[in-house]
This record gives sequence, C-alpha cells and structure tokens, in this order.
Amino acid sequence: MSLTNATPLQVAQAARTGSRKLAVLSAAERNASLTAIHEALAEGKEEVLAANGKDLEEANKAAAGGHLSQSLVKRLDLGKKGKYEDMLQGILDVRDLEDPINKTTARTLLDDNLVLSRITCPIGVLLIIFEARPEVIANISALAIKSGNAAILKGGKESYHSFAAIASIISQALSQTAVPSDCLQLVQTHDVVSDLLKLDTYIDLCIPRGGNKLVRYVKDSTAIPVLGHADGICTTYLCADYPADKAVKIIVDAKTSYPAGCNALEQLLVDEAALTTTLPAVAEALLQKGVSLRCDAASLAALKGTLDPHSAALLQEATDQDFDFEFLDFVLAIKTVHSLDEAITHINTHSSHHTDAILTFDSAAANTFLAAIDSSSVYWNTSTRMADGQRYGFGTEVGISTNKIHSRGPVGLEGLTIYKWTIAGDAQVSTEYGAGGKAWKHVKLPLSDDEMVAQNDEERELLRKFRAGKAAVSDI
Amino acid sequence: MSLTNATPLQVAQAARTGSRKLAVLSAAERNASLTAIHEALAEGKEEVLAANGKDLEEANKAAAGGHLSQSLVKRLDLGKKGKYEDMLQGILDVRDLEDPINKTTARTLLDDNLVLSRITCPIGVLLIIFEARPEVIANISALAIKSGNAAILKGGKESYHSFAAIASIISQALSQTAVPSDCLQLVQTHDVVSDLLKLDTYIDLCIPRGGNKLVRYVKDSTAIPVLGHADGICTTYLCADYPADKAVKIIVDAKTSYPAGCNALEQLLVDEAALTTTLPAVAEALLQKGVSLRCDAASLAALKGTLDPHSAALLQEATDQDFDFEFLDFVLAIKTVHSLDEAITHINTHSSHHTDAILTFDSAAANTFLAAIDSSSVYWNTSTRMADGQRYGFGTEVGISTNKIHSRGPVGLEGLTIYKWTIAGDAQVSTEYGAGGKAWKHVKLPLSDDEMVAQNDEERELLRKFRAGKAAVSDI
Repeated sequence: MSLTNATPLQVAQAARTGSRKLAVLSAAERNASLTAIHEALAEGKEEVLAANGKDLEEANKAAAGGHLSQSLVKRLDLGKKGKYEDMLQGILDVRDLEDPINKTTARTLLDDNLVLSRITCPIGVLLIIFEARPEVIANISALAIKSGNAAILKGGKESYHSFAAIASIISQALSQTAVPSDCLQLVQTHDVVSDLLKLDTYIDLCIPRGGNKLVRYVKDSTAIPVLGHADGICTTYLCADYPADKAVKIIVDAKTSYPAGCNALEQLLVDEAALTTTLPAVAEALLQKGVSLRCDAASLAALKGTLDPHSAALLQEATDQDFDFEFLDFVLAIKTVHSLDEAITHINTHSSHHTDAILTFDSAAANTFLAAIDSSSVYWNTSTRMADGQRYGFGTEVGISTNKIHSRGPVGLEGLTIYKWTIAGDAQVSTEYGAGGKAWKHVKLPLSDDEMVAQNDEERELLRKFRAGKAAVSDI
Repeated sequence: MSLTNATPLQVAQAARTGSRKLAVLSAAERNASLTAIHEALAEGKEEVLAANGKDLEEANKAAAGGHLSQSLVKRLDLGKKGKYEDMLQGILDVRDLEDPINKTTARTLLDDNLVLSRITCPIGVLLIIFEARPEVIANISALAIKSGNAAILKGGKESYHSFAAIASIISQALSQTAVPSDCLQLVQTHDVVSDLLKLDTYIDLCIPRGGNKLVRYVKDSTAIPVLGHADGICTTYLCADYPADKAVKIIVDAKTSYPAGCNALEQLLVDEAALTTTLPAVAEALLQKGVSLRCDAASLAALKGTLDPHSAALLQEATDQDFDFEFLDFVLAIKTVHSLDEAITHINTHSSHHTDAILTFDSAAANTFLAAIDSSSVYWNTSTRMADGQRYGFGTEVGISTNKIHSRGPVGLEGLTIYKWTIAGDAQVSTEYGAGGKAWKHVKLPLSDDEMVAQNDEERELLRKFRAGKAAVSDI
C-alpha cells in the first residue's frame, strides 16, 4: 500500500498479483497481519492525528468559505473522544470473527473415489470507493485481509493527509507479515477512478460507500459488478389492528433515531380504518420530534379533524414525488391505503427494495406481506432501522446491498467471498457415465464436523430427543 | 407468453408484474403449471414439428447458399429421434427437483421474540438470450417457473416458427394454471435486444446462452448483471509422477469427447521431467484421435525424439497466441513447465477461470494447486469435461458461470434464487440496544427439521456415535 505515481493499470495488476498470494495464506497468517496493523496504528496515533489535523484545518477553511458542510468536517475528525480507539478495536473485532474462507459448504460423492466439494474462497480484487471518513480505511483493510481479498481503496480528497498517514503505517506493518503490501492499494486522485472502473479484467467487485450520486456514477460507469445501494426508501405499513403505543414506538424509532441512515423510514402507509384511531397518536409523536408530515388527502383530512389546531397547522400536503423520494431528514410522507394488496403493490413499485415493514397482529396478513414484498429486508412489527450488519450479528458490515444477486441486505464478510468447486478423483472420465455406462451416485456427504447435519429422519429424531433431554451422549 | 407488437418496455413491465404474482405461488401451483406445459407440448407435437419443418426448410436453403453451417441446421432439427421426447422429459425432471425457494437458510434469535431469518426467493425477471436450439425454450421456461422467476426469452431467428409454435402452446397451457402467462415473454426480433439490455429497472439478471461473441456483446451493453462465461480455456497440468495409462485416459476424454464444449481441454502443461516419459504416450493417443498438437520448443523437441517419424511429422509449433485461445476443435496447445508454481501462475494468467486440473499422486502438490487456482472448478486426477450441472448432481443446469460473484461453475436452480431477510418482532426498536441499553442475544437457531444441524460438541458426538452404529433412536 503506497501513494505512488503508478498508473491505474499498474495498481490493478499489483492488486491482482497480491490477491493470488493472499488467497492461499492461512487464517493465522491473515489474523497476524491484522494484529500487526492494530499495533502499528496504536503506536502511530500521534502521527495520524497530526496528519488529520492538517485535513481538519483545510476543511475548516473550506467550511468557513461555504465550500464544505460542517457535518463533513465533523466526520473528518479522528481526534473526537473514543473515535481512534473504536477504529483500533474494530480491527481486532474483524480479526476475531470466524474465518469466512476455506469452508466446505457442500460435498457430493459422484462415484467411488470421486468427490465433489464446494469450498468458500475470496472473490479476488475489490475496488472500494468511499467518501470522507478516514477511519473507514482501517475497517475496510481489515475486512479485505480477513476475507483474503486484495483491495484498491479510493478515499475522499478531504481526508488526503489522514489517509496517507494511515496508509504508510499499514504498509510498514504489512511488510513484517506474510500478507504482501500490494494487497492494499491506496489511490487518492479522483481522475483515476474512471480508469479503474474500466479494468474489469483485474477488478472483480466494486463497492461504493457513499451517497446516491456516487453509487449511481459507479453503476453507470463500469462492467465490474457493483455491490451497494443507491437509495434507501423504506416504508412501513400500519394496519388498523395494531395498538397505538407500539406503533408510536416503532415509527418514531424508524423515522427519528437517525434520519440520515439508509434504513430510516421515509413513507408511512396507513390502513384507512386506522386514520382516526392509531394515526393521530403516531402523528402527534412525530410532530413533537420535529418531523414534517407530508400527508395525502385522506390522511390530511383525518388528522386535521383529530389533532389539536396547533399540531394540525404543521401538517403539509404530499405531492406524488414525495412517494419516490429519499428525504434523509425529519420528513415523512403519509399515504392512505385500502387493502393489504394496495400496500404491497405500492411498496413494490415505490420503495427502493431496501427495508420495509408491516405492523399488525394478523399473522396471515403479515405472512402475505413478508412473502410478497420484494425487498432485501422485510419486517413484521419492528423498526426498519434494524437493517444493519452489527444488529444482524455479522460483527461488522461492508454495506447494505439492494442488488438482486450475490448478497442482499446487510453484507458481512460472507458477502466478500465466493466458492470454487473441486473434484478429487482417480482417473474417472466423463465418457464412462451416462447412456450405456456407469450411473452417477450423487450421494450428499456430511460436511466437516462443525457443520454436521442430520442426514435422515432417524438422525433428526435422535437430535430432537437429545434436545428434549431424553438422551445423553454418555448413555450410548 | 405471446408474439406481440409490444415495445421492449411493455414486455419488461409485463414480466415484472407477472413475476410478483409468480413469486408468491406455492410449489404445488408452480409444479402443476409444468405438468400442464408438458401435457400441452406432448399433445402439440405435430404442430410444433410442422413449424420446425418450415424453419428447417429455410435453414437448408440458407445452408445450400453457404449462409448457414450444417451443424446449425442439425441443432435446429426437433424431429431427430428422441429429441422431442427428451425435451418433454426435461420439463418433468425440472418439476420433480426440490423446490429452490422459500427455504430458510439461517435463523438468529436477536432478542426474545425477535427472530431474524434468511429465506430463499426468486431473483425476479430474467432475460435469457439464446442461439438456435428451439428445445431450449421449454427447458428454460421450466427452470424459470420452477424457481419462481419471470423470464423474457429471446431466441435465434433461425428457429422463428418453432419458437412461435412452442410459445403459443405454452401460453395456452399456462392460461389454465395459477401461473400468469405474462411470466414468460417471447421476443424474436433482434433489434429489441439492445433496448431490453437498457431496462435494468425491470430486468434483474441476463443469461446469454451462446458463443463468445454473444456473451461479450451482452456484457459490454448492459448494466444488468450477466451470468455466464465468454470463454472456456481449460488447462490440465501433467506432473511427472502420474502414470501414462491414467494420463492418457483423462486427457483423451478432456480433449476429444466433445471439443466444442466449454469444458473441453485447450492447453496441456507438462512437467519437464514428464516430457520423455509420460508425454509421448499421451501425444500418440491424441494424434490417433486426430488432434493437432501445438507444442512449445521443449515439448516439440522431446516428442520428435521419442515418437515414430510418422507421428512426429504431424507435430506443430505453438505460438504465444495458442495459449490464450479457445480452439473448440481437435487442437491442443502443449507447454513445458518447470515447477508447480510456474503451472499455477500460467493457469491463473492464461486460463479463462472455467475448469483446470492437475494430474499427480502427490497430495501436497494437488492441495496447493486446488487452493491456488482461481477458477470456478479445479480438479485433481479427473477430466475437465466433468464440469457440468447434470454431472454435479444439480439435475439440470442454466449454464456455467465464470463470474466471481453470486454463482460460480455449473449453475443449477439455486443460481436462479437469492434470499431476503425477515424479522418478526414485538415492537422492539433499534434505540433499545447498544451502549447503555439491552444487549443483542445473537443466538443461532436451528433451521427447519429438514436441515437440522448439530449445534454443539455433544450433539456432534451423538451423531457420530449413532452413525458408528452405537446408538439407535429406539434405544432412547
């Protein structure tokens, strides 16, 4: 990893070569390199913060001149209490996750002495483009190395000095480990991105981490598969039977706990029968939190008739565009629907297939909703804000994918892996089998002990009895 | 499914709408539609063969004029003995495969009454572009419906009448079932393809089934993910310890059993020490089968010194280009290598990441090869021709993928599915958890009974003892 004058092609080729070496290292070797990076960054804290200080100085000047937002300046600051330590801890957290590669996930006996296996492996070379936050470089480097992938990292220009300092420290740390330094390539000039996006021979997957504009640009500019989401237009459908206290709790969390998050609620669909029963309490709670409510005609009329005049005066009329828009702010669009089908059709047409929820005690309606909604996460009686790799138990996340292939929803380490098929045989050949020849056996074999699956009804019954306390291993 | 004057946008929108309905049908409903299609095509055999006769007549004229190859005419012919019946049986075979959707593949207890599940589901709308063979329409229709996906099918112009006849019969058959006819859209004019490839809002996955040129065109023309392979440059590395009889058997199968197949051998790497021991027998066998051998300098010299003059006279000099070329013919490039590392580097650089093999009794060398080769299938002591969905036990295959994400190698029904995450809760919200709040439980839950996994060492020990015949369910 270094800041060189290398061309995009050289960067990509070096990453590809590095990826071949990284892919065959042991878990212990990959983990040891993460320990080394952690130690080096802990020791280099002052150096990094000094570099970060330069970025902050320039950013503050730009902000004063109106060229940069204050929130971006804030995200740049690595000196904020606990932020550097969180970054360091994140590296160890990734190190301590289960190894995602070299796992056998299927085994089939094709014939005697002819065994087919499916084994997880790295994807190869990742291109990760992210916006300002400089601590992401450490997180992404850890994820890439842990999953055996080389990564080309392109950071934002606002964090130039911080990136350079962190990159130099990581590069030095790697040089003492089995992981080749070439596995992490840092590029900082923006004009290099369009060239990198053309190198689909060397780069296997592109992960843009940033706003809608960045993701759309990347998707429109490359033949490399792109993992991510452009929009997070999340919807919740409130049914008439659901109690107001729970509805308020869920909807307030979904809309207000972090409105800038891609999993924040943007649209509320309300069953007609709930307009004057549950909706007023929900609307009142949201207004108190400072949320602007953009209501369709029916919900507007219902709320005007039920809220006190002060609250009612705050209500706004929704336009059609409000139902295809990601506010990322304290704004919620509200629409009345007359049936479960109408809610499902609206969501499948207008949501961004990220995360959508239904609030009801009717399990038949909920199951219909869960089956019919074509989104990466679909919830029953909880907040759309649950869509997060850490909350799902992945330890960490690479991002959230609204893709329809490979990895969908919060993407953890598993999303950075693929598999290869291996066959070990003894000179069996294709022409021996089929019409007139030998028959394939196609017997499913058990995986490793760690993933031992009950193979038949008897074994399932055995496990059930064991779990019910009716059998102990020592009894046998 | 119909041949209409619909615009590409209308076709794609209709498929999308159909896909929503298809996705929530039961396995029984999807299977019943395959039974109906099978019956209708069995009854309509004469009608289809009459239409096929028209295509054949036109094709024969074109072939006589030199505008079409005889092999293409042969592939068009549905009247060939057993071909129609194979097509019919294929529909029933797909029907009888395990349902690939609505399977729970992971479950996590996030907290009490808060359960995360990962459930397989259809991808949505497939665009499948294929060349002449008209029976593919029935196969692909069956695969799409079975996996709950709508499909837009674009066939070759040479099979226009056959397609129209089959499409009309399938369409009528579907109208009597729960599967909406819109789920299968047939388009036949070539100029429609470029417009369809732009509709990434409505089409989720594109599968080109055809030659290199078609696949490259599709990959270069669309933002829709593409599943498939452009090239099949498969390589086998012959080590010096491997006996000549087994080497001959494997290499002759890989090169000559179906040279036009993407899994056919195109390059042989030979350990230097095997040049005068094993290689001559292999070369002699290949020459007898009519294979042209394009040899590098060292292998050429070795073979000229060992083969009889008649055989030696047939040998050709290889050029550099021969090691980056898919012959799809009775031609094999032979290269001498001096180490396992050199073989691995050559294959990772020059193969098309499809299927590559090592022939050796040295398990350490084989394991290094299996781990280091970055291809969708990597074999030890068997023929590259094993790379095939039917041989892998998938029942049928959609194609073979050299992609690095989603699905790699032979792609069965599983490659036409993705998953969604669901959470069922009781009004838990995100802000209750984390710093100062409740802790996540993140307990892995058992899947359905059918996929019951041993959860801990005791349960694994129980299964081991049971399998060793030391316990029976009735004993407990």
